[in-house]
Amino acid sequence: MEHRILLTECPDSKGLIAQITNICYKHQLNIIRNTEYVDPGTGQFYMRTELEGIFNDNTLLLDLDRALPPGSRRSLLSRSAKKVVILVTKEAHCLGDILMKVYDGSLTLDIAAIVGNHPELAELAQRFGIPYHYVSHQGLGRSEHEQALLKVIAPYQPEYLILAKFMRILTPDFVAQYPNRIINIHHSFLPAFIGAKPYQQAFERGVKIIGATAHFVNDQLDEGPIIQQKVAAVDHNYSAEDMEKAGRDVEKAALSEALQFITEDRVFVHGNKTVIL
Amino acid sequence: MEHRILLTECPDSKGLIAQITNICYKHQLNIIRNTEYVDPGTGQFYMRTELEGIFNDNTLLLDLDRALPPGSRRSLLSRSAKKVVILVTKEAHCLGDILMKVYDGSLTLDIAAIVGNHPELAELAQRFGIPYHYVSHQGLGRSEHEQALLKVIAPYQPEYLILAKFMRILTPDFVAQYPNRIINIHHSFLPAFIGAKPYQQAFERGVKIIGATAHFVNDQLDEGPIIQQKVAAVDHNYSAEDMEKAGRDVEKAALSEALQFITEDRVFVHGNKTVIL
Amino acid sequence: MEHRILLTECPDSKGLIAQITNICYKHQLNIIRNTEYVDPGTGQFYMRTELEGIFNDNTLLLDLDRALPPGSRRSLLSRSAKKVVILVTKEAHCLGDILMKVYDGSLTLDIAAIVGNHPELAELAQRFGIPYHYVSHQGLGRSEHEQALLKVIAPYQPEYLILAKFMRILTPDFVAQYPNRIINIHHSFLPAFIGAKPYQQAFERGVKIIGATAHFVNDQLDEGPIIQQKVAAVDHNYSAEDMEKAGRDVEKAALSEALQFITEDRVFVHGNKTVIL
Amino acid sequence: MEHRILLTECPDSKGLIAQITNICYKHQLNIIRNTEYVDPGTGQFYMRTELEGIFNDNTLLLDLDRALPPGSRRSLLSRSAKKVVILVTKEAHCLGDILMKVYDGSLTLDIAAIVGNHPELAELAQRFGIPYHYVSHQGLGRSEHEQALLKVIAPYQPEYLILAKFMRILTPDFVAQYPNRIINIHHSFLPAFIGAKPYQQAFERGVKIIGATAHFVNDQLDEGPIIQQKVAAVDHNYSAEDMEKAGRDVEKAALSEALQFITEDRVFVHGNKTVIL
Repeated sequence: MEHRILLTECPDSKGLIAQITNICYKHQLNIIRNTEYVDPGTGQFYMRTELEGIFNDNTLLLDLDRALPPGSRRSLLSRSAKKVVILVTKEAHCLGDILMKVYDGSLTLDIAAIVGNHPELAELAQRFGIPYHYVSHQGLGRSEHEQALLKVIAPYQPEYLILAKFMRILTPDFVAQYPNRIINIHHSFLPAFIGAKPYQQAFERGVKIIGATAHFVNDQLDEGPIIQQKVAAVDHNYSAEDMEKAGRDVEKAALSEALQFITEDRVFVHGNKTVIL
Repeated sequence: MEHRILLTECPDSKGLIAQITNICYKHQLNIIRNTEYVDPGTGQFYMRTELEGIFNDNTLLLDLDRALPPGSRRSLLSRSAKKVVILVTKEAHCLGDILMKVYDGSLTLDIAAIVGNHPELAELAQRFGIPYHYVSHQGLGRSEHEQALLKVIAPYQPEYLILAKFMRILTPDFVAQYPNRIINIHHSFLPAFIGAKPYQQAFERGVKIIGATAHFVNDQLDEGPIIQQKVAAVDHNYSAEDMEKAGRDVEKAALSEALQFITEDRVFVHGNKTVIL
Repeated sequence: MEHRILLTECPDSKGLIAQITNICYKHQLNIIRNTEYVDPGTGQFYMRTELEGIFNDNTLLLDLDRALPPGSRRSLLSRSAKKVVILVTKEAHCLGDILMKVYDGSLTLDIAAIVGNHPELAELAQRFGIPYHYVSHQGLGRSEHEQALLKVIAPYQPEYLILAKFMRILTPDFVAQYPNRIINIHHSFLPAFIGAKPYQQAFERGVKIIGATAHFVNDQLDEGPIIQQKVAAVDHNYSAEDMEKAGRDVEKAALSEALQFITEDRVFVHGNKTVIL
Repeated sequence: MEHRILLTECPDSKGLIAQITNICYKHQLNIIRNTEYVDPGTGQFYMRTELEGIFNDNTLLLDLDRALPPGSRRSLLSRSAKKVVILVTKEAHCLGDILMKVYDGSLTLDIAAIVGNHPELAELAQRFGIPYHYVSHQGLGRSEHEQALLKVIAPYQPEYLILAKFMRILTPDFVAQYPNRIINIHHSFLPAFIGAKPYQQAFERGVKIIGATAHFVNDQLDEGPIIQQKVAAVDHNYSAEDMEKAGRDVEKAALSEALQFITEDRVFVHGNKTVIL
């Protein structure tokens, strides 16, 4: 008995759920959990089906392809840990949170490597026995630096890149290598405080709540599809530094919940938004 | 085109989702939203299907009855407002919140009547043009009082009774008249502080969070299936009275979210628990 | 024995708390609660002192004025209900929430009148026995309309104006009549989604949390000092209309918590921010 | 210039704040922040004063002792990291969270040693360079085991013991060694689900919110003064195991917020409650 996830995405039409679940039934697969969504604007259908049974992948996918309309996408995923590379700069809290959650079994990820544009976090990586690559941006043009990063990252063939407080803006060329596969944690409640120094901006505006946003990276700065957001209350006693410190827990929570969704194959990208099934 | 909700509950077996959604498809019904749950302990299957189309109720239900295993329950509900009777004592906040949400369109309920064992809230009912029945318990035995309540309530034929801070304990005889159809708001985070004066108990224990619990009433005091719970942070500055005041918003939120689930036909009772689909 | 609030604001210097509390002690006043804040940026000192005793207002204030540095502000407030005028357009939920909280004793306000630029909410005002003035903006220039509003409002001599979903932008001339005395509820988590249709903007951006902001109105649209913010989680299932509906509870909570702070004399305005003591 | 915390606790009387702040003023100390609380039930006064200046400890404390009524307690604390010993069993998440927060600077603690009644977490302690003492309870009576623990702990002279998922019940004899200095994380929203297997209990009761409670340990099981509580929403999809997993983040948050209060000298114990200033 195996446990698998079937993801289906196609234009909506009557009878889709019946067709797909019928095929599962013919294959003697038990549906553990089934969630779907139809976007009323675009008429796009999304379904995530947790299946249990004995899988004949080829004939199952063939049956699905015959039944589904043209332009459909479907994938049948096993529940093995996804391979990721984590990019960092100097701040330890997001990286440390991921490392510890993987360590204690709360998060199922295969962290192939950690790549930093500063050397500070090498020691933390080493404590957890994960290769650390220090790829300084000093003296390099943006494009040169990204080429250096890609050269280090590519051999690991990661499914996802996680930007765990990686404080460099990535160019469209870099992003195109990992479309909808780069997850960033932005230290504000987007779209508030786009850009640099969001805690300073939040302090100056006198907000009573701060937030953090985990999102896929696309070509527009801080404009990619949002996966998860979290917030915390602050008050007049908080300096910009206090907000930044309080924001750490918010950032960790938003990023690790987003990663949890990713590890469970629950995230569909839908234009500039996500559907979390 | 009509919009309906199909609720199905039966022992789980392979192919159930396929069977039910096939029948919907044959009836040319479009599935707007479908959520299901299988309880791993009992193997019971629960499904809620939002359908759109032209309904032939008789043949649809007949087709379902043929397909479903013995012991199944299914119902096909229209989205008309549910008729309720609200029971109160003296406190206005939960009643007022429901009245105002129905007034502004946030909550869809047909409030047939309000029944109180004190006269205080008659005037509020009158402001909203709803009949108020004052049924005092003074000088009556518990059973006599309940008979008097039932006599007033029964002619309205309500689908649900809402206990909006009704401060009387109902006997099993009364409850048996409306099985899983009486919704109570209890002013604590159950199962903490069962029984009387929960805010006083919370104050004495020095908790840092208070809560409220909306639940179906059954024969055991404060032991019925929980529909929704909400909490709020408190601190040492809160007296028992302050907690009670802060608790009002929590009570209103828990009760009105529970009622929202009820109005959307999302609540299954499952032993001593609820499944909210 | 009376219960009063002393508010003090002045440039910080050593010994301020000692000086002020000494004066209270000499007047045989008991300090029930004392909270203070010094802004590290501006060096401004803020203190709120809850006092109990027999008050000789004139000599107490005289003693304080002698002790405090030039440029100080102090006020000794009784705990009587503040007189307010509420401005509305068509949406009932914020107005209804305030009316019901005042009715059930959760909020202590003296609502002198309700003024609407549409007639819809007259009937709700009437249910609660509060004068409603319908001041249409139809056919009037912005300035003419504001003059008409002021003419209706001014005789009530309100301490605060509450914009409970009043959907008109006020000019600096109007705002100047009630500086830091107009409280607005904005239906977004400011500074995200400034301006019109914030729920539509939030929907299009695909946010996972929506918010509302209660703030003082100043000359800059949606830029006034924030008093309180509240949020709620949403997901891909929410249309812009669903977000708007879910946002109602958030708006009510942010506005009524802000009003609670106001009724307790806890809000200082400090440049473009608030200090809530 | 030093930064110190003055804690004062005594029976309330008029003029206390004035007296204490006067003494600070005479010592040319600047008050950065002052918070106080008077318990209306017991009439006990609590004050926490953050001071900045040049301290002459002896004369300052002498002046305070002269001014304060008999039975007063006062302490003048420097802001050095508190020395703690952490007790664990097998679960890594709370220990890991503390280690990582101390590592990244979010929490200021001097972790002198980690003591476990199982060997599993030795390796994690070693990664962070902290001595781990494995003190098995196998084959020992409860009292013998506690003696063995004390023998290992005592030489470190810790200010606090942190029970980071230490799954042994401590006897009054042990607790008496560290009165109000042992902090436990209980995996439920106390007083709900006292005792063993709270997540199983929560699952069986069908709650919609789970919680965790950080509290001081006293002689009564799970009855000590509560320092902090946190909660998270769950639903019917959660098995007892899922609740336990979801509870990890709640436990970490409650414990680390409680520890943050401790490191800032903000916690007074007041009978069976805490006052957090």
